[in-house]
Amino acid sequence: MTDFRFTQLAATLPSTVPFVGPEAQERSLGNAFASRLGANESVFGPSPKAITAMAESDHWKYGDPESFDLRSALSTHLGIDSSHIMVGEGIDALLGYLVRLFVGAGDHVVTSLGAYPTFNYHVAGFGGTLHTVPYFDDHENLEGLFAKAVEVKAKLVYLANPDNPMGTWHKAETVEAALETLPNNCILVLDEAYIECASGGIAPQIDPADHRVIRMRTFSKSYGLAGARVGYAIGPTKVINSFNKVRNHFGMNRSAQAGALAALEDQAYLLNVTKKIIAGKDRITSIARKNGLKALPSATNFVTIDCGGDGVFAKSVLEQLIAQGIFVRMPFVAPQNRCIRISSGTTADLDLFAAALPGALEAAKSAN
Amino acid sequence: MTDFRFTQLAATLPSTVPFVGPEAQERSLGNAFASRLGANESVFGPSPKAITAMAESDHWKYGDPESFDLRSALSTHLGIDSSHIMVGEGIDALLGYLVRLFVGAGDHVVTSLGAYPTFNYHVAGFGGTLHTVPYFDDHENLEGLFAKAVEVKAKLVYLANPDNPMGTWHKAETVEAALETLPNNCILVLDEAYIECASGGIAPQIDPADHRVIRMRTFSKSYGLAGARVGYAIGPTKVINSFNKVRNHFGMNRSAQAGALAALEDQAYLLNVTKKIIAGKDRITSIARKNGLKALPSATNFVTIDCGGDGVFAKSVLEQLIAQGIFVRMPFVAPQNRCIRISSGTTADLDLFAAALPGALEAAKSAN
Repeated sequence: MTDFRFTQLAATLPSTVPFVGPEAQERSLGNAFASRLGANESVFGPSPKAITAMAESDHWKYGDPESFDLRSALSTHLGIDSSHIMVGEGIDALLGYLVRLFVGAGDHVVTSLGAYPTFNYHVAGFGGTLHTVPYFDDHENLEGLFAKAVEVKAKLVYLANPDNPMGTWHKAETVEAALETLPNNCILVLDEAYIECASGGIAPQIDPADHRVIRMRTFSKSYGLAGARVGYAIGPTKVINSFNKVRNHFGMNRSAQAGALAALEDQAYLLNVTKKIIAGKDRITSIARKNGLKALPSATNFVTIDCGGDGVFAKSVLEQLIAQGIFVRMPFVAPQNRCIRISSGTTADLDLFAAALPGALEAAKSAN
Repeated sequence: MTDFRFTQLAATLPSTVPFVGPEAQERSLGNAFASRLGANESVFGPSPKAITAMAESDHWKYGDPESFDLRSALSTHLGIDSSHIMVGEGIDALLGYLVRLFVGAGDHVVTSLGAYPTFNYHVAGFGGTLHTVPYFDDHENLEGLFAKAVEVKAKLVYLANPDNPMGTWHKAETVEAALETLPNNCILVLDEAYIECASGGIAPQIDPADHRVIRMRTFSKSYGLAGARVGYAIGPTKVINSFNKVRNHFGMNRSAQAGALAALEDQAYLLNVTKKIIAGKDRITSIARKNGLKALPSATNFVTIDCGGDGVFAKSVLEQLIAQGIFVRMPFVAPQNRCIRISSGTTADLDLFAAALPGALEAAKSAN
């Protein structure tokens, strides 16, 4: 038998994947989930105008590799020159390209212990060394992250603000102040996937030309287009242009480009959805309290609920919910893994969650 | 000013892109193309069932990272176990993942001089050394490619069959016989993007478990879904599984998965489109002849026309056509660049091409 000549790095990479999808869980359960509240999607869906734009798109044509129309619209919407904007196949793809541009064997990267696993996946995938800093009081430890970046001479430091999986946040001025302590030549990867869910005062004021920061945003959350795979990066032109050296130029789905553009132009819909997301979060918080549990404050489209025990207990609660057809997820790492994470949903979704939670807690208590 | 700490490789990669999209040309011309015949898309579009499936897709949900339903349907359609099939964001993305798995600095790769540039882009992008073999009589030189692979101890050798940009092909048995001369531990990347356009006897019989071959196929050509970005790789399970180490797991557009599945299930539509593609190609061949030009035989969805001069002359013809609103492309490298490449089109598309070609030739003759 012939041996495959994988690269040394590829040969040693694990085959584990960052997340198992809900569809795989449904196949394994033999049932569709009754309520899909685990992936921080928007059950409220995208603007009807986006749906129409996607349906009317010329599917037979490749997408514009420059995503010119969408970048122009983002430029206008954000008041940022489009030379500072790169559109990609979701934040996941953009994170991959960014890591590829900066990180190889011997390069150091910093993130929080238990933060977004797909970023870690990319760092490992390009041979970088990842250093983690524990959360502090369920918040990413900004001071600790930047101090670690100094210590290990990190090329990249990752921060999600608002945070996933905890839903917590740092104020804009806190991030702005912390930036001054970022070591020279280190780039802050500021993941703002949830920024449209957040109230004012959370997105820091950062000059898009600032060499210290790449921001990442997405149409997957409040805009309700997770299935379309549209994200964008904002940063200094030299980095933005460098994406062109490695990205999949014809990788953007054409109808997704059109859908994101239409979604961006329908800010009234976004505002309306934002209210629904908040109402759903309030309901989740109330359900948690009724069950004697603490819900963490959240600036995202989900609520993280402290189940009041350890990771084993929370996992047991999660498994009970899943067995009852409620798809939810939980943090991977202690002590955050004492929690479960519930995406905002419709009244019907949350009725199911409210009905299932007491039994799930009861069963978990009996089992533990 | 802060210097960016790109990887050594990223710092040295060129910023040139494999292809400029037609939309960028339209922006530069200030006009939309009247006829879009340059990117080997299918102007006939996808099955109406695919369009419906995409429109009815839940855009708010992430796609299934395993593309289970599509892989299962491909498995049934092809009579191949789905463990041999990987779905990705078009062949371009799959080629990128494959190169990443196998190629790094010091690794050698073989392709034809003037073959698909995006493959070359990936090889350069991961630091590999590319060796090229000239075409022979407008065909990829199978014997020469495999001999070069022996000589340089290549990890990968790329072959498009049918070929792009020439449209020519090798018979199945020729490829099968040549495989026996492929050096040990070298993988043939068999790009079959155009295989649905080809008549029988071109796709070689290859056991999907055969360690020597990865085949790449797509829904972008005959299936009319270029904008959706759905390709798939067929090969030995160990290589297929290895994609999971590096790919963008949640990179697939959900509606694209549904559209490709519906398109695959509508083979009657595919058959009908295939007839239209052939009729369009016959018309292009006839137009070429009426203008005193030779059209190359083609097993793809396009016809390559020998303009009867050198690359400068063909480029001049191409520019004249583009100025008249007809989007076409041409091979990049001599001697293939004496040709222009016209995708099959509707009667209206080809009426415009027929009307424009005589003037384009005349103007090119005057200019050269």
